[in-house]
Amino acid sequence: MDFFFLWLKITFLLLSRFLFLQIDHFGFDENLTFQQRYLVADQHWKKDNGPILFYTGNEGDITWFCNNTGFMWDVAEELNAMLVFAEHRYYGESLPFGNESFSDSKHLNYLTSEQALADFAVLIEYLKMTIPGARYSPVIAIGGSYGGMLAAWFRMKYPHVVVGALAASAPIWQFGDLVPCGAYFSIVTDDFKKSGTGCSESIRNSWNAINRLSSTDAGLQWLSNTFHLCSPLKSLQDAAVLKNWLSETWVNLAMVNYPYKADFLQPLPAWPIQEVCKFLKDPSLSDKLLLQNVFQAVNLYYNYSGQASCLDMSETATKNLGQLGWYYQACTEMVMPMCTDGINDMFEPQKWDFDALSEECYRLWGVRPRPSWILSMYGGKNISSHSNIVFSNGGLDPWSAGGVTQNITDSLVAIVIPDGAHHLDLRSRNPLDPKSVQQARALEICYMKQWIEKARHNH
Amino acid sequence: MDFFFLWLKITFLLLSRFLFLQIDHFGFDENLTFQQRYLVADQHWKKDNGPILFYTGNEGDITWFCNNTGFMWDVAEELNAMLVFAEHRYYGESLPFGNESFSDSKHLNYLTSEQALADFAVLIEYLKMTIPGARYSPVIAIGGSYGGMLAAWFRMKYPHVVVGALAASAPIWQFGDLVPCGAYFSIVTDDFKKSGTGCSESIRNSWNAINRLSSTDAGLQWLSNTFHLCSPLKSLQDAAVLKNWLSETWVNLAMVNYPYKADFLQPLPAWPIQEVCKFLKDPSLSDKLLLQNVFQAVNLYYNYSGQASCLDMSETATKNLGQLGWYYQACTEMVMPMCTDGINDMFEPQKWDFDALSEECYRLWGVRPRPSWILSMYGGKNISSHSNIVFSNGGLDPWSAGGVTQNITDSLVAIVIPDGAHHLDLRSRNPLDPKSVQQARALEICYMKQWIEKARHNH
Repeated sequence: MDFFFLWLKITFLLLSRFLFLQIDHFGFDENLTFQQRYLVADQHWKKDNGPILFYTGNEGDITWFCNNTGFMWDVAEELNAMLVFAEHRYYGESLPFGNESFSDSKHLNYLTSEQALADFAVLIEYLKMTIPGARYSPVIAIGGSYGGMLAAWFRMKYPHVVVGALAASAPIWQFGDLVPCGAYFSIVTDDFKKSGTGCSESIRNSWNAINRLSSTDAGLQWLSNTFHLCSPLKSLQDAAVLKNWLSETWVNLAMVNYPYKADFLQPLPAWPIQEVCKFLKDPSLSDKLLLQNVFQAVNLYYNYSGQASCLDMSETATKNLGQLGWYYQACTEMVMPMCTDGINDMFEPQKWDFDALSEECYRLWGVRPRPSWILSMYGGKNISSHSNIVFSNGGLDPWSAGGVTQNITDSLVAIVIPDGAHHLDLRSRNPLDPKSVQQARALEICYMKQWIEKARHNH
Repeated sequence: MDFFFLWLKITFLLLSRFLFLQIDHFGFDENLTFQQRYLVADQHWKKDNGPILFYTGNEGDITWFCNNTGFMWDVAEELNAMLVFAEHRYYGESLPFGNESFSDSKHLNYLTSEQALADFAVLIEYLKMTIPGARYSPVIAIGGSYGGMLAAWFRMKYPHVVVGALAASAPIWQFGDLVPCGAYFSIVTDDFKKSGTGCSESIRNSWNAINRLSSTDAGLQWLSNTFHLCSPLKSLQDAAVLKNWLSETWVNLAMVNYPYKADFLQPLPAWPIQEVCKFLKDPSLSDKLLLQNVFQAVNLYYNYSGQASCLDMSETATKNLGQLGWYYQACTEMVMPMCTDGINDMFEPQKWDFDALSEECYRLWGVRPRPSWILSMYGGKNISSHSNIVFSNGGLDPWSAGGVTQNITDSLVAIVIPDGAHHLDLRSRNPLDPKSVQQARALEICYMKQWIEKARHNH
């Protein structure tokens, strides 16, 4: 990754900049500003109003998204486009109150999608006013995951700022009762089911094996040793943490089940679920043998480099993601109902429990989630009056459960990539890319060209 | 007016209700709610998803707007529509913090157009969920003046909530440098110019007459007596107040220059500017004679009923308008540049002075206006990707200077009513209505029917 980043810097002269923005766009009492970071690469940009591809940063350090969105770099030359990567407030270096940003609910009060979209709008207007030759540049929003939701919502709410949006793996319908709460984990399960005989069944059986072992101190000790845990398990509650950690690991593997060696959430081999499933062929093994295999499987995810001396349950993915900020967002606007039943999925059954979430959020942050607000704000499934949004989804990606996978209108278009995991299409071209993602990218570029052409024509 | 209101209550069973809404839709730190008032009349509503005409309340008591929007009452039966009039937060009885609402910038922090639109969206969703038979009712936003801006912006930002909007006399372009700052006062001047020979010239000459007289104590005394002022003028500054008050009076007359006797801002005769101009035929009179005529003219505006013992310069219009709230809004989001040059208009030359406004706002409220925010938020002139908005404008109305007076697309339509003052089309049908307003209303109804029909079809 570092090498790739260096390469970008050399080839594209990536510039890191900051702009002062209002901390509160929607109120006038506090007139404070903060510095939002954004990255610009204009090597391929055609000066007289060539297009701008604008990455709507999501919950993490923007340089990391910049490194993992090779698609934009790949098409910059073809579109004569400037690339801009805007960091989302409260992540990376764009902290409204510096080290105090997460100190309490007062300081966190401005961490919302609406404020982030307003940041993007003001930034783009600033760029168009200050960069010579950019005044009439058509801007296209691009984002993946939460960034994809932001890209779609940005086009919906600020169509005067962006002529279109590519929303990759954006689960804009994972809210309220728009989709079944179990669909997400059922896709994870399918990924494992088709990656090896006995695989999903082994995982399904592992939960009770852990339950049985964690009922005794000796069992807890055995689990701690077997899983090479940095902090040993001491109680049944710790065993629940272990199970959550394992669940998250399977979910993450489903998200990054890419067809080639990659380092997104963790460094991993090609088709990592197939690799993991090689350890999980026999679901009928005894508890201890089964769980030793489960360890081999998760060890592949956490320790592919072989450097970890122990496994730390407090981290499941790259540190570039801003966990704290995202937890707050999940406790306020981003309430995404999820559930498992152990039948259609390989997880322990767990109902969606909004009240428990609300209590937890109040305990952690002193805030209560508002589960219907996102629907009121962004329209739920009733979005047909908008235009120029491409929603791309990976068939292997659990987030496709809440994504737009069927065309809504001629200009609200869904692209499904059957062999794709989480926003595979946003990654750099790779010789091992399946045909489906190549076609998806070609179609995405085709739509982008249409939007640019139309904007030129209108101007 | 009272009689009309009573009549409405009897005929339509107007119900006044309240709904608890978030004080801050855009932040989660304060989880407080307030009671928003809204009025419902459903006598003509067809229960199985008949349409809802939704008045997006502006800066005043909602019952007053309800009384002055007879058009909605007139078409309710034809459209089988329910009428809902929603009060704007911080006006009428919808005060988020009761008597404390205007106490300081902290309490005023939630008085923005964005919060008001969110109120409307949540209210409509609540009505659709709770009124039996309303679940799939198409909703049309209707508003006049600032309420018209809200109606248009509501359709732009929440097209999933309203299928279309009638924005009457909505100066959505009276911001930034979208229109010349002098256009507004130049329309006022034209109204006077064509309403009587010598009329606008008399007013133009009056300013220097006042300036000359107010240079001495005796002159100030004479002015106070002549204008029957409740508080006598004591200084040159007071004379400036007098001139502002007179200017506002001429502006208000231009807004309510209706073709029949009416009581909107004040009780007035038909075509009040013509009446006023009967006193202002000779611009070449001496200062004192000219100003005595000016008094006769303003006295017609302030004292048509003949009951006022003196004229109070602190009030220029009905008390139903929430002046305090609107001043705050003009000091934050609603920054509308205005200027005069004394050549294209009949006023004393005055440049647009943003810095002075900003200082005044800081002194009054401790806030600074953000003149470009409305443009960033609502798109300025770049709104062609939206749909289903009718912008109606009166040719006599100064606010038409900042209005949309030409079609933007097939479904962003401008209607101009040459003989109309400020949202004449929203008033009740009247035998003295000019043909132009009758046609405008017919076209508005036609568009509303189309929107309803299309919504039915889509559903």
